[in-house]
Amino acid sequence: MRPVTGVRLGTVAAGIRKPGRRDLVVMELSADTVCAAVFTRNQFCAAPVQVAREHLLQDRPVWLLVNTGNANAGTGAQGLQDARACCAALAAHAGCRPSQVMPFSTGVIGEPLPVARIVDGLPAACAKLAPDGWPDAARGILTTDTVPKGASTVFPVNGREITVTGIAKGSGMIRPDMATMLAFIATDAVVEAGALQQCLSAAVEKSFNRITVDGDTSTNDSCVLVATGAAQGAALAPGSAGYAAFCTAVESVCTDLAQAIVRDGEGATRFVTVSVEQGRDAAECLQVAYTIAHSPLVKTALFAGDPNWGRILAAVGRSGLDRLDIRPVEIWLDEVCIVRDGGRAPDYREADGQRVLQLPEYIIRILLGRGQACDRVWTCDLSYDYVKINAEYRT
Amino acid sequence: MRPVTGVRLGTVAAGIRKPGRRDLVVMELSADTVCAAVFTRNQFCAAPVQVAREHLLQDRPVWLLVNTGNANAGTGAQGLQDARACCAALAAHAGCRPSQVMPFSTGVIGEPLPVARIVDGLPAACAKLAPDGWPDAARGILTTDTVPKGASTVFPVNGREITVTGIAKGSGMIRPDMATMLAFIATDAVVEAGALQQCLSAAVEKSFNRITVDGDTSTNDSCVLVATGAAQGAALAPGSAGYAAFCTAVESVCTDLAQAIVRDGEGATRFVTVSVEQGRDAAECLQVAYTIAHSPLVKTALFAGDPNWGRILAAVGRSGLDRLDIRPVEIWLDEVCIVRDGGRAPDYREADGQRVLQLPEYIIRILLGRGQACDRVWTCDLSYDYVKINAEYRT
Repeated sequence: MRPVTGVRLGTVAAGIRKPGRRDLVVMELSADTVCAAVFTRNQFCAAPVQVAREHLLQDRPVWLLVNTGNANAGTGAQGLQDARACCAALAAHAGCRPSQVMPFSTGVIGEPLPVARIVDGLPAACAKLAPDGWPDAARGILTTDTVPKGASTVFPVNGREITVTGIAKGSGMIRPDMATMLAFIATDAVVEAGALQQCLSAAVEKSFNRITVDGDTSTNDSCVLVATGAAQGAALAPGSAGYAAFCTAVESVCTDLAQAIVRDGEGATRFVTVSVEQGRDAAECLQVAYTIAHSPLVKTALFAGDPNWGRILAAVGRSGLDRLDIRPVEIWLDEVCIVRDGGRAPDYREADGQRVLQLPEYIIRILLGRGQACDRVWTCDLSYDYVKINAEYRT
Repeated sequence: MRPVTGVRLGTVAAGIRKPGRRDLVVMELSADTVCAAVFTRNQFCAAPVQVAREHLLQDRPVWLLVNTGNANAGTGAQGLQDARACCAALAAHAGCRPSQVMPFSTGVIGEPLPVARIVDGLPAACAKLAPDGWPDAARGILTTDTVPKGASTVFPVNGREITVTGIAKGSGMIRPDMATMLAFIATDAVVEAGALQQCLSAAVEKSFNRITVDGDTSTNDSCVLVATGAAQGAALAPGSAGYAAFCTAVESVCTDLAQAIVRDGEGATRFVTVSVEQGRDAAECLQVAYTIAHSPLVKTALFAGDPNWGRILAAVGRSGLDRLDIRPVEIWLDEVCIVRDGGRAPDYREADGQRVLQLPEYIIRILLGRGQACDRVWTCDLSYDYVKINAEYRT
C-alpha cells in the first residue's frame, strides 16, 4: 500500500478484548486535510458513529481513532460518554480539540467499552506513527476477518501524481447501507469538502453498497475518505477531467476493498457476482439480485457446488417484481444458459452447470427481458463455517 | 386425526423419486363438496398451481391429486401438459371431468414430472381410498420433513358436531405468502363457497402466513379447505355464531399445522415466537419481526443458545422503520428484559438470558413504544443441519 503524504498511522495491541492482538489504530491527518464520510443507516447506530458524525459537522478532523474488539453499540448514554472520553484523551495527548478526533469501533455489540485500556494504549500508538503504517493498521482493525484488506492506486492529473490508498475490515454482518463495516481511504489530492463527499458517496454506492455476506447491516458501518492536499495544485473540481479521474480512482479502491470483504466473508468458499439485466430500472434489478444473494437455499446450493437452479428461479419469482412475465426470463451461470421460456433450457446439461459452480468465482446472470436497466451485487456462499463462526462467536 | 364424512384418501408408493416411499395421494370428495384455496404468490408458480387454480375457477373439484418427489415447477409448457395429463388419467379412471381434478406437486424443482409413474400408480391409490386414510396421506406428502403433520378439532353448532381435520407438509423453502407448501383441510360443515374462501383466507393470514424457516417462498405453496356438507343443517353464514365458531376451528387447525412446520424446520433445534408490540400498525410490527426471524446472525446465535442480543438490536435497527426513536425500545427474552433505554438493561444478567435460550421454545418480544399495534411470527434457528440438508439435497 502506497503511503499518502500527510497521513501517518500507528497501531498497537492494547488488550481491548484479547491480549497480544493489534486492536488500536490512530491516524494523524495533516492540518489542511479535508474529510468526507458515510455512516450506517442502522437506527441503532453505535455511539462512535454518533460522535464521529457530530465532530465532522463541528470541526475539521485531525485524528481518526479506531478500536477493534468492542463495537460500543447498544451501550446507551454510557457508550456516548465512553466514546467522548477516548476522543478527549487523544486530544489531550496530541494537543488538539476533542472535536478534531473522529472515533470508530468494531467488535462485539452491547459490552461496555474498556475506556482505560484504550486511553492507556494511546501514547504507544502515537509513538508508532509513520507514513508507511498502512499494512499494520489494516491488520489492527480486523475482527473475524481472516486477511487484511488494502488497496492503492496512482494516477496523473496535470503532470502531478495523485495517490489513493485505503484499508477496510468486514467479514460478517455485511450488508452495508451507506458504507461497509469500517473503511479508511486517503489521498493527497486537493479536493474541496463538497466535491470530496460527492465523490465518496458515488463510489460507495457502486462498491460497498453492492455487497452482501449475510444481509445484516452493521450498527457501526463507517467509511471515511480524507484528502490531505499534499500533492498541491488547483483543487480538483467537479466537471473537470482531473476530478473524473479522481472519482474513478476512488471507486476503484472502494471496489477492491468491497470485493475483498466478500472474498473474506465468514465461511465463504465462493465469490459470486449476481448480475440482473434487462430490468425496467436499477431498483428492480437490485431487488432481484439481493433476493438471490440473501436466499439461504441459493447460498447453500452454491456452497455445495450444486446447480440447483430451481432455487434461483424461485428467488426471482418471489422477489416482488410488479407483474413479472416469466416467459422471457433467462438465467445464466457464466456462459451456460440454464433457464429459458419458463423452464430448463433445452440444450442445458447438468454437467455444464456443475463445471461453472466448481469455479472459485463466477457470475449468475438474470435477464428479465423487460427493459434496459442493469445492476449487480457481489456475494458469497453459506457454509458450515458460517454457522460455526457465528454460533461460537462469543464463546 | 378424525375422519371427515364425505372425504376418502388413498396413498401409495409410486416410485416417483425413490422406490418404496409413499409419494402419491388421492383425495376423493363427495359430490356436493365446496372448495376454497389459496396459492403461492411466487411468480414462477408451478404448473400444478396454475392448473389447480384454473380448474377451481371452471368446475367443482371432486379429486385432489398430490405427488411428492417432484414439484413440476420451472418446467415450462411441458410441465403444464404433464399436470393436465395426470388430471386426465385420474378423471378417466374415476369417470369424471379432468377439470374436476386439482393437481398438487412438491419436491425437486426443474425436473420433468414422471407422468407415467403417477398414472400407473393411480389405480392402486384409488383402490386404497378410505375415510381413515388421513395418517397415511400425511406421510405420503412429505419431502424433507421428518414428521407427519396433522390436526383435528371438533365443535358443536346448533346441536350438530362439526369436524375440521387437516394435514400439511413443509420444512424448507418456508416463508409462505398465501399458504404453506401444501396443506389440505376438510370439514363436514355446510358452508357456501364465498364464506368458505373468506374463512380460509383469514385463517391462513394468521397461521401459515406468519411462519418462516428460511425466508424462501416456494413455487408450489397451496392450501385447500373443502367442506363436504355431510353434517347437514343450514349453511354456516358469515355473521352467525356458527360461522364464527367454524372460523375459530379452521384457524386453530391451520395454526397447529403451521407451527408443526416450523418445529420441523430443516435443521431446527428451537421454536421461537418473535412478537413485536407497541407498533404504529401491524405492517411495521411484521417488518421488524421478519427482519429478526430472517437474520442469519440472530438465527445462528439462537442455535448456539447464546443471548447475543446485539444482533437482535441490530436487526431492529436495520428493519427500515420510519423515524424509529430507539430510546423507548425494549427487548425481552420471555420474562427477561435485556434492552432498555437504547442499551443493556441495568438489571440484566447474562445467566438469565442464557437460561431462556436453552429452552426448546421461547418468545423474543420487541416493544417499540410508539403505538398500540402488535403482530408475531414463528420461526426456528439456523444450524449446521440446515446447511447439510440443503447442500446435500440433490446428491
